[in-house]
This record gives sequence, C-alpha cells and structure tokens, in this order.
Amino acid sequence: MLVVMQANASEQEVRAVCERIESLGLRAHPIPGSMRTAIGITGNKGAVDLGSLDSMPGVVECIPVSKPYKLVGREVKPEDTVLVVPTPSGDVRIGGGALAIVAGPCAVENHDQAFAAAEAVRAAGARLFRGGAYKPRTSPYSFQGLGLEGLKILADVRKSFGLGIVTEAVDHESLDLVEEYADVIQIGARNMQNFSLLKRAGRARKPVLLKRGMSATLDEFLMAAEYVMSEGNYNVLLCERGVRTFSDHTRNTLDLSVVPAVQRASHLPILVDPSHGTGRRQKVRPLSRAAVAVGADGLLIEVHPNPDRALSDGLQSIPPEEFQLLMSEVRQIASVLSREVN
Amino acid sequence: MLVVMQANASEQEVRAVCERIESLGLRAHPIPGSMRTAIGITGNKGAVDLGSLDSMPGVVECIPVSKPYKLVGREVKPEDTVLVVPTPSGDVRIGGGALAIVAGPCAVENHDQAFAAAEAVRAAGARLFRGGAYKPRTSPYSFQGLGLEGLKILADVRKSFGLGIVTEAVDHESLDLVEEYADVIQIGARNMQNFSLLKRAGRARKPVLLKRGMSATLDEFLMAAEYVMSEGNYNVLLCERGVRTFSDHTRNTLDLSVVPAVQRASHLPILVDPSHGTGRRQKVRPLSRAAVAVGADGLLIEVHPNPDRALSDGLQSIPPEEFQLLMSEVRQIASVLSREVN
Amino acid sequence: MLVVMQANASEQEVRAVCERIESLGLRAHPIPGSMRTAIGITGNKGAVDLGSLDSMPGVVECIPVSKPYKLVGREVKPEDTVLVVPTPSGDVRIGGGALAIVAGPCAVENHDQAFAAAEAVRAAGARLFRGGAYKPRTSPYSFQGLGLEGLKILADVRKSFGLGIVTEAVDHESLDLVEEYADVIQIGARNMQNFSLLKRAGRARKPVLLKRGMSATLDEFLMAAEYVMSEGNYNVLLCERGVRTFSDHTRNTLDLSVVPAVQRASHLPILVDPSHGTGRRQKVRPLSRAAVAVGADGLLIEVHPNPDRALSDGLQSIPPEEFQLLMSEVRQIASVLSREVN
Amino acid sequence: MLVVMQANASEQEVRAVCERIESLGLRAHPIPGSMRTAIGITGNKGAVDLGSLDSMPGVVECIPVSKPYKLVGREVKPEDTVLVVPTPSGDVRIGGGALAIVAGPCAVENHDQAFAAAEAVRAAGARLFRGGAYKPRTSPYSFQGLGLEGLKILADVRKSFGLGIVTEAVDHESLDLVEEYADVIQIGARNMQNFSLLKRAGRARKPVLLKRGMSATLDEFLMAAEYVMSEGNYNVLLCERGVRTFSDHTRNTLDLSVVPAVQRASHLPILVDPSHGTGRRQKVRPLSRAAVAVGADGLLIEVHPNPDRALSDGLQSIPPEEFQLLMSEVRQIASVLSREVN
Repeated sequence: MLVVMQANASEQEVRAVCERIESLGLRAHPIPGSMRTAIGITGNKGAVDLGSLDSMPGVVECIPVSKPYKLVGREVKPEDTVLVVPTPSGDVRIGGGALAIVAGPCAVENHDQAFAAAEAVRAAGARLFRGGAYKPRTSPYSFQGLGLEGLKILADVRKSFGLGIVTEAVDHESLDLVEEYADVIQIGARNMQNFSLLKRAGRARKPVLLKRGMSATLDEFLMAAEYVMSEGNYNVLLCERGVRTFSDHTRNTLDLSVVPAVQRASHLPILVDPSHGTGRRQKVRPLSRAAVAVGADGLLIEVHPNPDRALSDGLQSIPPEEFQLLMSEVRQIASVLSREVN
Repeated sequence: MLVVMQANASEQEVRAVCERIESLGLRAHPIPGSMRTAIGITGNKGAVDLGSLDSMPGVVECIPVSKPYKLVGREVKPEDTVLVVPTPSGDVRIGGGALAIVAGPCAVENHDQAFAAAEAVRAAGARLFRGGAYKPRTSPYSFQGLGLEGLKILADVRKSFGLGIVTEAVDHESLDLVEEYADVIQIGARNMQNFSLLKRAGRARKPVLLKRGMSATLDEFLMAAEYVMSEGNYNVLLCERGVRTFSDHTRNTLDLSVVPAVQRASHLPILVDPSHGTGRRQKVRPLSRAAVAVGADGLLIEVHPNPDRALSDGLQSIPPEEFQLLMSEVRQIASVLSREVN
Repeated sequence: MLVVMQANASEQEVRAVCERIESLGLRAHPIPGSMRTAIGITGNKGAVDLGSLDSMPGVVECIPVSKPYKLVGREVKPEDTVLVVPTPSGDVRIGGGALAIVAGPCAVENHDQAFAAAEAVRAAGARLFRGGAYKPRTSPYSFQGLGLEGLKILADVRKSFGLGIVTEAVDHESLDLVEEYADVIQIGARNMQNFSLLKRAGRARKPVLLKRGMSATLDEFLMAAEYVMSEGNYNVLLCERGVRTFSDHTRNTLDLSVVPAVQRASHLPILVDPSHGTGRRQKVRPLSRAAVAVGADGLLIEVHPNPDRALSDGLQSIPPEEFQLLMSEVRQIASVLSREVN
Repeated sequence: MLVVMQANASEQEVRAVCERIESLGLRAHPIPGSMRTAIGITGNKGAVDLGSLDSMPGVVECIPVSKPYKLVGREVKPEDTVLVVPTPSGDVRIGGGALAIVAGPCAVENHDQAFAAAEAVRAAGARLFRGGAYKPRTSPYSFQGLGLEGLKILADVRKSFGLGIVTEAVDHESLDLVEEYADVIQIGARNMQNFSLLKRAGRARKPVLLKRGMSATLDEFLMAAEYVMSEGNYNVLLCERGVRTFSDHTRNTLDLSVVPAVQRASHLPILVDPSHGTGRRQKVRPLSRAAVAVGADGLLIEVHPNPDRALSDGLQSIPPEEFQLLMSEVRQIASVLSREVN
C-alpha cells in the first residue's frame, strides 16, 4: 500500500499518517518527492484494509501495491505448468507449447446429437470433447440440460470415440457427478466467484477448467484459480471467453491481450473460447486463428452437427465442415509459433 | 425477434428467410420499408434461438424483441409489491412509498462489535440490521466470516435490539442456516447468476434480497429475480450496488438510473447500496441522499463502530455519527417525495 | 511512479532498476517489504514515461503516482470557485452553495420554438438558457443546427427574456461566433479531448462549460479543464453527462459519484445533465433530484415546448409542465442541503 | 424503428400509437404476436427521433432498426475497396488481400531519431512510415510535437528512404499542412467525432486513416467514416486501436472481433494498432500476430530506435530488432491466409 499526500500537506499531517500506520502494527516509509510526499507501507501479510488513512487530512489517495496471489504466480513457480489429461486414446497435454482443442456442442441434447458431434470432433483431429449436461441459463424457462442422463451420454462418447470429456458443474451436487463421469471439471464464467464451488473443485481429483467472469480483472481471475489451488488441486486450466463492454457488435468482447498477461503473471495454461467470446458463428474461425496466433494454449469451440436446430447457443455454434477448416488453419498458425496441436 | 434485411436483399432472399422461420413452427411477418424489409417473428414461447437466420444471405441482423420475464413484470402485476418483514419490534414495510434502511457492519466480527453497531443503527432509527456471517472474499486468505457463530450473534442482536436481520447466504448449506436464523436472505452480487442458489432461495420461506451482479443488464437482473419467483417465493427485494465500468474514481459506478428503470418494468421494490456502490466512505452520505431522491425504496449502509479497525471493507464503512446525519438527511428528502422512512 | 519488484527479485535486479532510474536523472527510493521490494521515484516534473523499467528483469509493474494537474486542483486553490455569469437580469452565480439551472431545447430550430422554450424556462424560474446552434450529430445526414442564424435567435432570447445564453462551439470558427453572441461557451463531450479547441476556449473572454467525455476518467476530465485554464481562462464549469458502459437501459450511465469526487479534487463547480445522461424523458426528473441531492452545483435540462416534434433528441426532452415540477422538487431538495437555486 | 407494446396493451393503446406514427407522416405496421403486439414503422428517411412514442400508454420500448450509413456500407459497394498510396518507391496497396505495415515512432523528436527509425522500418520491409508532428496529449504540459518542423523531417524521410508518410492532423490548420507534406492524413481516436475535422478531411486530396474512438460502437465508427466520404473523399482506412473497458491489465482492450464485423458491414480496409491497443511493449508482437490472423488489412506499429529514451509512449514502442521479428512472424501468418504483406 502506498499513501499519496497532497502537494501542500504539512509535516504534521505526514507524521500523523505515519503514526496511524505504525499503530496498526505496520511500518511507514515516507518518500519525500519534489512535488509531494508518498508513504510506503510494509509489514502486512497480504492485502490490508486501511479505511481510515484515506480520510486523514492531507491524504490524496491510497494505492494498493502487493499482489495477493501466491500459488498461481510465476514468482512461486517460474516454469510453465503442463497439464496432462488422460483419455482412452492416450494423454492429452496442455501448456508449455502443447495446444489442446476442446470441441463439441453447447449442450448435450440426446445420444444421436452427441455422437454426431463427437464424430465430427474426432474426424477433425481434436481429442477433448465438450458438452453441457448442466446449463446455467439466463431464463428459468430455457432448457437447463439433461443432468445425469447427459453425463451418461458423455461417458458413452468417451468410450466410443476415445475423447476426453470436459463438462460444467454448477453446484456441489453436480460437481460430485461431473467429477465421477468427466475428465475435466468446468467452472463457468457466472460461477467464477462462487467461492464455495471453487473450494469444492479444489478438493476434486480431476483438473479444473476455470472460465473468466464476465467482468473479472486479471487479478480476480487469478485469485479465483488461487481458491482452487489453495485447497490442493493444482491442475487448473484458465479460459478467456470474452468480457462485457459497451461494444455491441459481438455478444462479448474477446480480450486476447489477457493471454500474454496471464502468461507473464502465472504458470497456468490459458485457453480461449471464441464461441462465447463473440457469440457469432461467422466470427469463430477468425478469432480462433487470432487466439492461437496470440499464443493461447488451446481453444474451446462449439461444434454442432446441425447448428440451426440447436437447443442452445445455435447462433454461435459452427457446423462440422467449418470446424475442419478451423483445425487446419490453427494447425498452420501454431507451427509458425513452433507449437503443436495436441 | 425481428430480422433486418439488407437494402438490396432480393425478393428470393426475403422469401427464403420467411420459409426458414415457418419451418421452425413460427410465423413470419415481412414489413417492406422504403429502404429495406424487416421480418417480424411471432408464435414463439419465450426467447428463441435462431442461429441460422443470422447467417442467411441478405440478412443484416437479428434483434430480440420479447421480454423473457413473466412473474417479475408489471405486465403481470401492475401494482407495487409491498414487502413486509416481521421483526420483534413490529412489521417493517418496504415498497409502495415505504422506505427501509438496512444498516450494520460488513462482517460480524464478534459480539461486542455487533452490539455496538446495532446500538448505533437503532439509535439512528433504522429497523433492519445487516452483517455478514459468510463473506465472499476475492482472496482465499482474507477473513471469510464467523459462519454459524456469526448467525448466533445476529440472533442475539435481533432479540436485544428488536431489529430485523438481513444476512448473506453463499451456498445451499449456508442458506439453510440463514433461513433459520435471519429475517431476510441476501444473495450477493457475485452469486446473482448462481442459478442453483437462486432456485434454493426460491424455495425458502423468508424474503430474498437480491443484489445486482457487477455487470448485469436490467434484463439479467430481473431474470435472476424470476428464478427465485419461479420456485414460489414472491418476496423479492432488488438492490443496486454499483456496476463495473472503466471509471476509476470509485470502486464501482453506482447506476442510480436503474431505479426508475426497475420501477417501470417491475413491481418489485428496489434498494440502493451506496457503500459497495462507491467503496469510499466520503461518498456514502451524498449518494445515499441521491438514492432516496431518485426514488429508491430503501438503502443498505455499512456502519461500523470503529471503521478504521474493521476486518473487511473498512474503507467504505461509516461511523455511527455519520450514519445519524445520513438518516436525518434522507428523512427530509423522502418527505419531499411524500415518502416515509419505515 | 512506483516500481513493484517480484517477491523473489534478486538484490542485483533491484540495484539495476535503481541505476536505470538514476541514469534518467531521477532519484530511486527502494522500500524493502516483508514480501517484496518497491522502489519509489522522485525528482520528476509531471508525469514520466519510463518504458524500459516495465520490461526489466524482476519488475512486476509500474504504478503512476503523481497527479498531473495543477491549476484545476484544490491543492493550488482550496476554496470553491464561484463563477459569475452576467445576464441582462443580473448576475447568476454558480458554485460555493449557489445552484444554476440551465434549460432549453437541444437545438434552436426557429424563432418561435426558441421563444416558446425560453418562456417556459423563465416561467419556471431558471435564469440560463441552453440551445444548440451547432450540433455535433453522429450522422452527416442529420440536422446540423442553424449556425449563425441560431446564434442570432439566441441573442434575441437574451434580450427578450433576460436569460443568459449557453451554447456549444464545435471548432475555431464557431467558437469565434459563440464567444461573440453567447454568455457561456459549451464544449461538448465529443470534443472533450479536442485539445486544439480547448486551447482556443482558454483564450476566450467568456466562461467555458466543459462536458465530460463519454469514457473520460476523472483525471482526463480535469486535465481537459487544465488545458483551458493553462491558456488563462479560469472560468470553467464542469458537467457530468453520463458515461458509456455495458448498461443498456439508459443511453448513457449517469455517474453521480463523480460529483463528490470532483469536489474533493478540484475547486471548480460541477453541473449534471440528466437529459443526455439518461436519454429517456421519464428519467430526467428523478435523476435531476438525485443530482441536486448528491451535491451538484447545477443542472442542464433539455426542455422543448413540443418534444414530440423536436428535430433532435426529442426522446429525452421534457415539456414545460414537467420542467416546472422538476424545478419545484429540486428547490426543496437544495434547501435540505442549505443550498439555493440561483 | 419498432415499437414493442406491453403484453396486456389494449387495442385502443395499439391504435393510438399507430395513429401517432401516421400523424408524423410515416406508416405503422402492427404485428400481433402470441404474447404482445409490435409495431413496425416505415416511410422514414434515415433515423427518426420519435420521442413521444416511448412515453405513450402501453409502450414497452422503441428499438431502432435502420442502419444509418450509406457510402461506407457493403450494400452500396459489395466489393472490397483497395486503397492505393503512391510512394517514391512505388504504390502501396491496402485491402482486398494486400496488407500494409505502417511503422515508426510515436512522435518525431528530431532528424536523427526519425532517420534511425526509418532505417529500421525500411530494413524490416515495411513501406509506410508513421510519426507524429502534432501530438494530442492528455496533459497540456507534455511534449506536443514539433509541428511544421516535424512535417519537414518526415518529408526528408520520404525522400531518403522511399517510404510513404502517415501522420496525424489535429485541427484545420494542421490538416492543411499534413495534406501538403504527408501521403496519408491520420485522424486520431480522440477526434473520431470531431465532425468539423472529419468534414475538412473529406475535402482533402489524400487518403484518410481514421482511428476508432475510445468508446465508439461499430455504427459510430462507420458513421465517422461516412462523414469523410460524404464530402467526396472515398479513400478511407479504418483502424482499431483498443477500446476502453474495466479491464486494467492493458491500457486499452484491443477489440479484434471488430475486424470481421467491419468487413461484413463495410467495404473499407481496416488496420489494427496493437501499440496503442495494449500500451505494453511485451504485448505488441503477440497482438500483431493475432491481428493479422483475424484478417486485418494491416498494422500500425510504434518502433523507436531507443524506446527507453522516447519522449512519448516509450512504454509501448518496440526496438528495431523486435520489429524485424514481428515482420517475419506476420508474413508467415499472412501466407496461411493467402494474403500478402505489401
């Protein structure tokens, strides 16, 4: 924490602030500048909440300095985390130069739809399958997913196609089941700060794919991962899926610059979801190329055998032939970066 | 849903879109304009997901029209909902011209702090007490609340001061306990789209205070309330607490214009929380005045007997004497609007 | 500027950063903390651009500290600026407890419309008249204002009704004319960072009403005022008119918390424009009450004798009878704050 | 425009709205739905301002439908515009598959710096040189550019290196000079809605590079280009440079999804500026790759021979060797898309 004093703050005011800091068991470090004095604070463990300082005479503002995360940070673990997802057709590696493509329908609708999608996904060379059994929908009257029945269809997909399964959990109950049936537990954007669920995921024995909240800062995003890791589960995959801004030509604004920002601050792999990130079918392929070009460790793509009849998110799902084209393009771009699609 | 065609769309393209609409079991209503044709769609129940239309030749864009909410809307219930919270010192009414002030510390820290805060709250004339026993914190290393012990202290506050208790639930487990110990169940901003929790709250026998999510649109906010109501609990209080924007002089941007917007669209009462809404102690009183002046049905205010020593959110808590002043000012402003503080 | 080092930065890395700082002619102040070292920088005049530091080994981030503004700040002039606008019917004072209501149509359309609006404005007790002769419109095909002819009508309004005139200038040429014909020169939100125009306004002999840009931070807003003042014109009025956010229930999100924030940082008066701030007629009156309650030094209100026939912004203009009601309500709220409508 | 009625609006209310529409000289098209009636409006030229409808009994909301732009739209000109910039070393083509890289320092500081930068730019194979002679700076006390002297240095760069010159104009006076000395006239983000300047640029005989405003929607961006084109200058280049959001890990949020969105709506070429778009040196190269991968028609890159000593924007400028690497990467990615760097 740094306290910035007014240009004309009196010596007495500076001293009073320092004394208040010391009275809280911390150390004050006044730095006299040419224009004004600033006061550094040390001795705190983690973030401090120093309400009173901001209101003291002569104070302009208080600026937080310490980064509160520990386990997610590169400071603790400088080398990239490479996550390994075991599937019936062998391990899939994510991070450290290995890219993973996770593809499939927004929601599992029935056996035939899931199998048709899985066929397309495998044919194009992807090795992880996504599909929602529990769907967080804005309206209580929208299709909410097949639940356990959906998970069983996903287990069949795994067996039949050798694909690893990624699917979302929305509460403790569904997380128990997802942990049992799937290979990766997804926590959705709307639950990024559902700390009770994050802690439960931190006690799971499966990797966690954590999506960035709709208006989460980088720090909040990493702190959500810290919640999972602080409970002992170190296998966390981050995923950018667009943030909410004033911009109205896409459903969300895909923030690709968060990829190098995450990679600088953290050792965890980061994927990009251009399907939710744009919400528009025609933009999925261009933004997938861009995500790989920026250096993402993988993609989440909504593929539907017949998007015009999808029960949810049809507007952003792409058909199999478009996905095939996408895979071919991102493979070529990955190779420009000397990276490989896993 | 309205489909807007290009100015130079051919008759054939318009017809193809109409046919696609009809093939989905809906009705198409082409409206030929001087510049272009638009096509209205009717026959749908709730929102439709018409992925394919957006990509058809000649289509410029698809604009959703139907409002998806039902029970929260004024169309279903034109008159204001007046919520009644029974307390040991009599009923507190909220809505329909009656204002409620909910005040207390961010977190319940211990018996003495809670009682000192409650004394200040009652002395100033407020009748509902807030205080967190379960705290959703950005960092897993921050104080997470006293849990059940906190709820018991709140129950003591109710008994000793006759105040109604408002406190937050963060998952099914804590909601069970909050429902037992408190008078109003608060769902926080971070859980506004935790639909599993909303449904559980919809089965509770206590009123629910639902805070607006950090980047929730008006429609999403009302749909979250619809989740609660769709399970049978019609006693819902909305609460604006600031939204996330680029603006950095306050922690959040308090969106007071949502108050008349909610009141136009819904019959539910809406409170304002200027403590979280600004995150700055000096701004709580001015924004409280503004919230009452704009027509809010009440306020949520963080009051702490010694804010500089608060374990959480000290930066935005006000001391008892400031709260007294606040109450006096908002009472006068309420009377300009012929409304009464309850 | 404060440079935050990594927790595990080596002594050598800290030293290298300090040396780089000193090599730029500045002074480095390392502050060793329990978790990491931070390095304060002093000796700079105004903001510094220290590109290299951010990329040096061991550096986490660089945080700017110094506030770059001078003349607009309370540090230079602690007491409120009270702006005086001379009108044919006597001086109008703005700031320091005196509120000014500026009202009139979005655009001057013709003599009769302007006179009908002026009659309504004066009848309700306002003393400053607004009306655009030069209109910055999103589309080149929309009505762009009457130009000089509009200014002459405004001059007639001043003579006939004794109202002071506030009108917008959009470039050097129109500013020359506005300076001649009007009492206050308005710079619109879209031109808040048109620095060439700000400098020209800084050389004008009339007060300047500066609107906040659509996505301007507090600092940028104040720096725009600094541009005007740095050229010698100290008579600057600020005006909040809503900022752009994801929120879609109003045209802009009126940021009322900027009022106390400006008043803390600067001595300049600040008005609020709820007409542009909401873009919705039904929200103008509630938000006007809120603006006065939060402590604004005045209001800008669009009043049109027949809003449904307005050539621009009819959606947000209110009719005379609504304006009368508004004036009565804000007078009562101002008196709760011991302030007076001028 | 579409007027959405309440579910329970009476026939009389629907009729009243229709009559109001017809009384304004327009045609009303009621579309009775299963839940509610919507009323389409036709007969208008361009956007209509129908203030009164929104307040009529039974009305829920009014939704604008018509796109107001004409000359910029693909509807008027389906094929891509290919802009040709003549330089001493031959024509540079932009658009229609040809990519252009515009590179150089933020500001022209002196002859040696400009020549060193130009040498690096040419050596890496770029053919257009950027450098500011007129700098719009947030603070009046920051370096404002060399003005005419800077333009003369740029003219020397053109002669000595055969590079085409792109530089910013900030008002009518500087535009006259930029038109004389440069090959492409840049209009900066802060002036995107300085309509007076846009019109002047529309009368210039040189191409115009128009940057997206910090919070401009796609429609506003295209309408700004429409201002230029409506005055007769059809040679317009668009440029995405990041928008303002809550996200704080970069200076702006680069909105790459606007590239396919522009390409769908308009025939004009669109460049991307990852230097301003991120404000961080380490992110320029990854985001440059992403911009080319998403399909942009070129890049604007800040290159400085000694970024750590730059007078402005050193934090986001890259050194020559980094630029060389960048050029090599984007060339490879362009070839994946069968496009060529010009």
